[in-house]
Amino acid sequence: MRQLSASEFEARLREVGESRYHHLHPFNQRMHAGELSREELRGWVINRFYYQVNLPIKDAYILSKLPSREDRRQWMTRIVDHDGRADGEGGIESWLRLGEAVGASRDELLGCRSVVPGARFAVDAYVNFCRTRPWLEAVASAMTELFAPDLIARRIDDMQRHYPWIEPAGLEYFRARLEQQPKDIEHMLGLVLSSAQTPEDQQRCVEALEFKCDVLWTLLDSVEQAYRKDTA
Amino acid sequence: MRQLSASEFEARLREVGESRYHHLHPFNQRMHAGELSREELRGWVINRFYYQVNLPIKDAYILSKLPSREDRRQWMTRIVDHDGRADGEGGIESWLRLGEAVGASRDELLGCRSVVPGARFAVDAYVNFCRTRPWLEAVASAMTELFAPDLIARRIDDMQRHYPWIEPAGLEYFRARLEQQPKDIEHMLGLVLSSAQTPEDQQRCVEALEFKCDVLWTLLDSVEQAYRKDTA
Repeated sequence: MRQLSASEFEARLREVGESRYHHLHPFNQRMHAGELSREELRGWVINRFYYQVNLPIKDAYILSKLPSREDRRQWMTRIVDHDGRADGEGGIESWLRLGEAVGASRDELLGCRSVVPGARFAVDAYVNFCRTRPWLEAVASAMTELFAPDLIARRIDDMQRHYPWIEPAGLEYFRARLEQQPKDIEHMLGLVLSSAQTPEDQQRCVEALEFKCDVLWTLLDSVEQAYRKDTA
Repeated sequence: MRQLSASEFEARLREVGESRYHHLHPFNQRMHAGELSREELRGWVINRFYYQVNLPIKDAYILSKLPSREDRRQWMTRIVDHDGRADGEGGIESWLRLGEAVGASRDELLGCRSVVPGARFAVDAYVNFCRTRPWLEAVASAMTELFAPDLIARRIDDMQRHYPWIEPAGLEYFRARLEQQPKDIEHMLGLVLSSAQTPEDQQRCVEALEFKCDVLWTLLDSVEQAYRKDTA
């Protein structure tokens, strides 16, 4: 194993996304092709919400071990983006509105009782990863964000076209992410590229990103399987 | 909520198994009906092995918090049953032989690299449950063992009949469990029935058992889905 240059290392990380990010998952492809039933879309929102509410928690674990005040200041904005600065604001609130737009009540989402076990285990694995691993690996696991803007831009278009019954306000989360994510990506990428000082560090970052792709993929596997059973 | 009598409480726990234990899972039913391909059976052994190697670990977490020396002495025998008293003995060793009998090498099993992410997340969730929850809930989560002897007895018969290419020595794990499990079940059942002192305790035990059923079910979901994709 040799140390990759920063640009080689970034290319290696991007390869992981090209081959394993959940844009390739059959359930996601059906979502974008307009093939999901209302019940499937509702099931996706309910299960994905469990991921969303856990994002500020995993970010707090990462915050607890970042190496500098400057990094913590930057990372903190992620928590604010999800929780908002006041009631009625933030990404979690936007997901609650998406839930209402697809027929899932705030209580159902916040109670997390309809989350299927496989989705819960996958998200809990992600939170535990960020809790127990060194900060560099925990930060690297967030690098699925590198691949999110393309997917989110397409998602807004495809959902408006194929599921016109979803109120436009329900898609606000995705619009906001397109504005928030560039600052997160720039910070995270700089931090990972400059801090992975050995070939072993770089390999651990690649594996952390692969792990995170598995989390997102398994979440969709679980939703797909739960709704296939319901219709069987 | 009212406090159930010991026999009502035991009946309530048995109801959970009747409705959610993995004997009902389609993949398990296909296994017993002789419908699994060699590749599917091999995949099941590889993924289930990840559960098997984690059993003594979760048992050690439970051991660390049991209330008495007597309970620890009893619980300790579970770890010995899995690890053996010497090289070449114990349940994990028997699973390695089952692996060889279905075409999975010891290295492949011990490396755990072919475990599908969903199975890994489910098993890790179980270990974390036993690590972080009070001992009564952790012990209650092991009560899927109440339902195991019936399933294992049928498994030995069905596997011998439907998969005659599996060497008889490969099924030794299941034969040994039929002898080991009664002592574990008696201890565990006595401990849970006598220690759940409030309706809330009883309810938490029921939920712990439901959680554990979800772990085993999700493990089979993940194997089923992984091999469905391979053949699609």
